Formats: sequence, C-alpha cells, structure tokens
Amino acid sequence: MSWQTWLEAAATAREEAGLTRQLRPRGPHDATSKAHSIDLAGNDYLGLSGHLDVRRAAAEAAMLWGGGAGASRLVTGTLTLHGELEAELADWLGQPGALTFSSGYHANLSVVSALADKSAHVVSDAHIHASLIDAVRLSRSQLTVVPHNNVAAVQAALAARPGVRTLVLAESVYSVLGDEAPLIELAEVCAAYGALLVVDEAHGVGVHGPGLVARHGLAGRPDVLVTATLSKSLGSQGGAVLGPRAVLDHLVNTARPFIFDTGLAPASAAAALAAARVARSRPELADTIRARVTGLAKTLGVPAPAGAVLSVPVPSPEAAVAAQAELLAEGVRVGCFRPPSVPDGVSRLRVTAGAGVTDEEWERAAKAIDAIVGGDR
Amino acid sequence: MSWQTWLEAAATAREEAGLTRQLRPRGPHDATSKAHSIDLAGNDYLGLSGHLDVRRAAAEAAMLWGGGAGASRLVTGTLTLHGELEAELADWLGQPGALTFSSGYHANLSVVSALADKSAHVVSDAHIHASLIDAVRLSRSQLTVVPHNNVAAVQAALAARPGVRTLVLAESVYSVLGDEAPLIELAEVCAAYGALLVVDEAHGVGVHGPGLVARHGLAGRPDVLVTATLSKSLGSQGGAVLGPRAVLDHLVNTARPFIFDTGLAPASAAAALAAARVARSRPELADTIRARVTGLAKTLGVPAPAGAVLSVPVPSPEAAVAAQAELLAEGVRVGCFRPPSVPDGVSRLRVTAGAGVTDEEWERAAKAIDAIVGGDR
Repeated sequence: MSWQTWLEAAATAREEAGLTRQLRPRGPHDATSKAHSIDLAGNDYLGLSGHLDVRRAAAEAAMLWGGGAGASRLVTGTLTLHGELEAELADWLGQPGALTFSSGYHANLSVVSALADKSAHVVSDAHIHASLIDAVRLSRSQLTVVPHNNVAAVQAALAARPGVRTLVLAESVYSVLGDEAPLIELAEVCAAYGALLVVDEAHGVGVHGPGLVARHGLAGRPDVLVTATLSKSLGSQGGAVLGPRAVLDHLVNTARPFIFDTGLAPASAAAALAAARVARSRPELADTIRARVTGLAKTLGVPAPAGAVLSVPVPSPEAAVAAQAELLAEGVRVGCFRPPSVPDGVSRLRVTAGAGVTDEEWERAAKAIDAIVGGDR
Repeated sequence: MSWQTWLEAAATAREEAGLTRQLRPRGPHDATSKAHSIDLAGNDYLGLSGHLDVRRAAAEAAMLWGGGAGASRLVTGTLTLHGELEAELADWLGQPGALTFSSGYHANLSVVSALADKSAHVVSDAHIHASLIDAVRLSRSQLTVVPHNNVAAVQAALAARPGVRTLVLAESVYSVLGDEAPLIELAEVCAAYGALLVVDEAHGVGVHGPGLVARHGLAGRPDVLVTATLSKSLGSQGGAVLGPRAVLDHLVNTARPFIFDTGLAPASAAAALAAARVARSRPELADTIRARVTGLAKTLGVPAPAGAVLSVPVPSPEAAVAAQAELLAEGVRVGCFRPPSVPDGVSRLRVTAGAGVTDEEWERAAKAIDAIVGGDR
C-alpha cells in the first residue's frame, strides 16, 4: 500500500468514527479580552503559569541565560539554575535528590527504560499514562498489567516471579477517573517483595502540596521513586525524577532520553522554580481546589476526585461533544474524554477545578455545568 | 538480585571502565566573568541562544503567555504563538506545513511511532541518532539497519520487501562524524520504491540555512519528511516535523508523544521564532561557521565536516579525556566522544565551530587545539 493511500485510509476511518482531532489555537489568557472564556480544560491547576513571580522569573532567566541550554545536560547543558530547581524540588518533596528533564514524558521514558530491560519485570496498573506505557515498550521488559488499584493483583504478580528485578508503576492521582492509588499498601507489597515502586505524581504534586508520596510518609524511602511534571501545577514545561541518589546517578549515566536530549530551557526551569516557591508558600491555593472540586462533585452527584479534575460521566461520546460545545457557547471551556482515550469506555467531561480562575468565574462556570449536564442524573 | 545490588554493580562496572559521567553545572555565559571559557562544546551553532532578539522574544512571551502552555496541544495547549512559529519554519524550509514538539527527541519518536507499526518496514542508516533508534523500537516495526551512507544497501533493503510500507531514516548531517547524507540519491531510491524518506535536520538547519533538504531541492516533496530541533541552531528548546499536511494531520491524531504531552512553553516557542528570523536575515552567520570549520580542519589535517562540528580522532579514550582536560585548562571547552557513544569505536574530540564566539576567541581556541592535538598527526 502506498503512503498516500495509507494516510488517506487512516484519515477516512477517523472521520467516519467521528474521532478527527484538530488543533484550535488560543490567544494569551487575558481577562480584559472579549474572547475570554473560563478555562477549566487545562492542567495549570494552581494557576501559576500566569502568576507574576513565575512570569518574571521566566523572563529574567531568558534574558540572563538565553533561549536554550545549548547542549545535552552531560556536555555544557547543565546550568546552575537546573541545580537550584532540583534542590528546591527535592527539598519540597522530601527526597534525597531530583533530576529534571525536558518533559514529564521524558522523565517517565527515562526511568523505565534505564531501570528495566529484558531481564526485568514491570507490573503496571491498567490506568497508567501513555508515557509510562510507551516507556515499558521501549524497555522491552516483561510486562504484567494488573486491574486498576488492585493491590492483591500486584502482590500476585510479584509472587509469580520471585527473585526477578521488578518495577511497579502507579500514579498517585489518575488522570481520567481522578482517583487515588492505594500508595501505602502498594509500598508495603513492594517492600515485601523487593520491588521498586514508581509513582507518577503528575496530578499529585501541588494539588496535594508536596504530593501524596510525601503526604503518606513514603518520601525518601529507597524503594519508592517519584516522577513529576513541571507543566501542570508548576505552570511551566519539563519533568523530574525524585528519589535515591543511586537511581539518579544511574539515570545520568544510562537514560538515553536524558543523555541524548538538550537540557531544559532556562525560562522553563526558572518558571518551575518560582512556581514551586509560590506553591510552598501558599497552601491555600490547593485548599481552593479541594473546596471547588468537592462542591461541584456534590452538586452533580458524582464522586469527588482525589485531584483537581472532576470527571463527569455522560451517556455517549456524542453527548459529551454536545455538552462541551454548549458550555463553550456559555464561555466555559472544559475537556472531553471519549473512547479510545478512556480506559473503561465511558465518555466524560473533564472539568479542572483549578485555582487559576476567580471565585466569581468558578461560580458562573459551575452553574453552567450543572445546568447542562447536572439535569441528566 | 535486589535493586540496590543491581544499581551498585552497574555503578562499579562504569567506574572500572572509566565511563562514569557526571553533571558539571555552568553559570550563565558572561564574557566579563573570570570563569569564562570559550564554549566549543555546545550545539548553539549560530550563537543565537544569547542573541538579544531571541532573549527578548523569550522574555516577552513569558510575560504575555505565562510560564507554560498549560495543557496538551489537543486541549487548550495550542497557542497562536505555536502557529506563528510553525508558519515561519514551514516558510523558511519550503515545506507545506510544520508541527512543533517539546523536544527534537519527541518529534522523532512521534514520526516513527505514528507512521510505522508491526506491518511497516524501517530502513535505518547505521549512524542515526538515539532518538530515532528509540523511535523504531517504540514502533515495533521491522527494522533493517544498513551500513552508513550506503545507498545501494538502502536500495537492496527496499527491493527485498516490495509492497511493504517503508520508512527510510537518515540525518542530513550526522552528529559524530559530521558527514553528510547522500540525500538526492536516497530520495531517488525512495521514490522508485514508494518509500517515505525521513531526514533529521538537527545539524543541518541553520548551519545550511533552510537545511540540506531544501538546498538540494527536495523540500515540499510528498515522499520526503523533515524533522528538526529548535535547540541547536535555533538556540531554544523543542522540535519540529515539516512536510505534507496529510502527515502532520496524522501526527496530530495518532502520535502519542504529541497527544499526551504539554505544548511547547511560550518562551521556547518565541525564542525559536526569533532565532529563525535572525538566521534567515543573517546568512553570514552560517558562512562564519563554514570558514572556521574548514580552516581548522585544514590545520589539523582532518576532513572538513558538512556541519558545524569538527570531529578530531584521537588515539584512545584516555587521550581524548586528557586532551579535553588540557584544553579546558587553557580556557577552551570542547566535547569528547568515547565508546560506546561512537558508532565506529574511534574516540574523538568534538569541536563546535559555532558563530557564537568572537573571531579573537575562535583564533585563540584554534591555536590551543592545534597545539594540543595537532602535533599527534
């Protein structure tokens, strides 16, 4: 089959399934703009991307350091600024050390591909993020996928291959359903079988202060590794791995997505550093998220999520798209999850109860959401 | 084996082989600093990371847009700024369209994993970059590695699997040896067999104006796809794919490293945009690189590379490390390639003849290099 025929066939199949995706460019967030809509679709949970400290730190770093790091971290692309950011993150999350990456995706690819190989076993929760799934594939390790949040299944998988070097993959807060992993139980099982627990805190850090690994007293353990993103609660771009120095040294020496990539841009590193400082000094931002998400969940009669994102089931993919469009007409932008992006086949609206909108905007948006999807249940 | 034992064994093996890598943080480039060394190790080929237009554009974008894009490109993470950058890159490189990514690594992962699968065949040059090797692994496609720059071998690989959807992977300028791919011949062979040629222009764009695909009149062809980085000649962070709209639409809809990643940070997008404009308006920057690299190659009696990086073979890994240290003592920072990072097992100094240092600095550095490694041959 020719390339052209193949591309056309794939496009037609998407079109017929109603699954064609298109990029819709937006302008800068600007409360004075008439085109301004209330953004409850993004992942800037604490609203820090637009915080003046964050913007200024990014701007100053760009002026001082230039547009890029200029090389791989192993050549001349490690800046003292990266070191400051890594020290701040490690201190905040209660970890021995941190290593930053150009994206959270890269952090996950690096951890799994550098620690696991054909001789290793990876036990993965069924709901983990695409980046971890790709990471396992890249590692060529032996994979066991266990049902979501099922500690007994994790234990059975570990018991089935005694003596094999094993990674267990989980997220502290899962993206689509917004539920929390049983981290304490997972850590206990991992410790009992000598496995290394990798917890992706993409949706946990910031929304839960230093994250749920820290909140549950698991930070700093030699058998618990944290990956995080700088692009959600920290309002920037990039990723990080936090944990024992021996693991970080191993990544520096062997993780191809770290070694063969340019270091994180100075502005992004500085933005994340400033955002971490704001997040640490203003715990009330996370409290705002909790109050909003709990309140709206109650109104709509859906379970309150562990994170900042409320997942509102709707009857069909078409109903989800229609509700999203109706809300946009009301000036409220929400996300929409449809198969195949949902692990359980249920279409949903995805509403971020972030701290970045004002109380008044949140109230207005919550009313609109209730009016449009609240009546269904 | 326990995790701790495994990590310790790996660290000991590295140490015994003399291959332990360590991060060495640097401060901002600052000509007035006493610690200032002449950086011939990085990839900021045109010296644009520190160009005032680039720094200002990054700073202004950070102030206007905030620290991050806030979401996946498919949700609310596509900025009009991304569109401006993509239009500029497409116009410059003579391509129908462009799509930007958070890193060049991600651009390569996306192209190969979205276009190739188990039913596809990938024919790869033996010297391609780690990101493309990982991309092939991720795609699970059928792989044929052909000897470096061997068009007959590519043709034989294509002839061996007629009718199979095939990608051919090459770099316009290869990183380690600095040599150029036979792009015109490769494009002819690909056209004859209906294969899609993917050319990584990481080291070509900027150093050769719009890149070697454009210089050879191959831009805009439906069967030639370009990937590029924003972190080398464009002095920023990020990557791009340039080519037919049908391919870019396919990536938007199916490339997991695009879909499940946060959009490129505003400051990085703006820095790359400003750098592209400077590079287009100042072709003499590329001329400077050519003159420098040709002159030093002649002095040292090594082949002149096609790109900005001069590869200077040295007798052993130990000699490479020693020469690098001697040069650093003279205030000249160069890179060093040792096995296993070299495809042919030959250790090298890696000298970037970038436009970012002054003529006086370049002369001083070139003399030091000649004094330290020139006498060996």
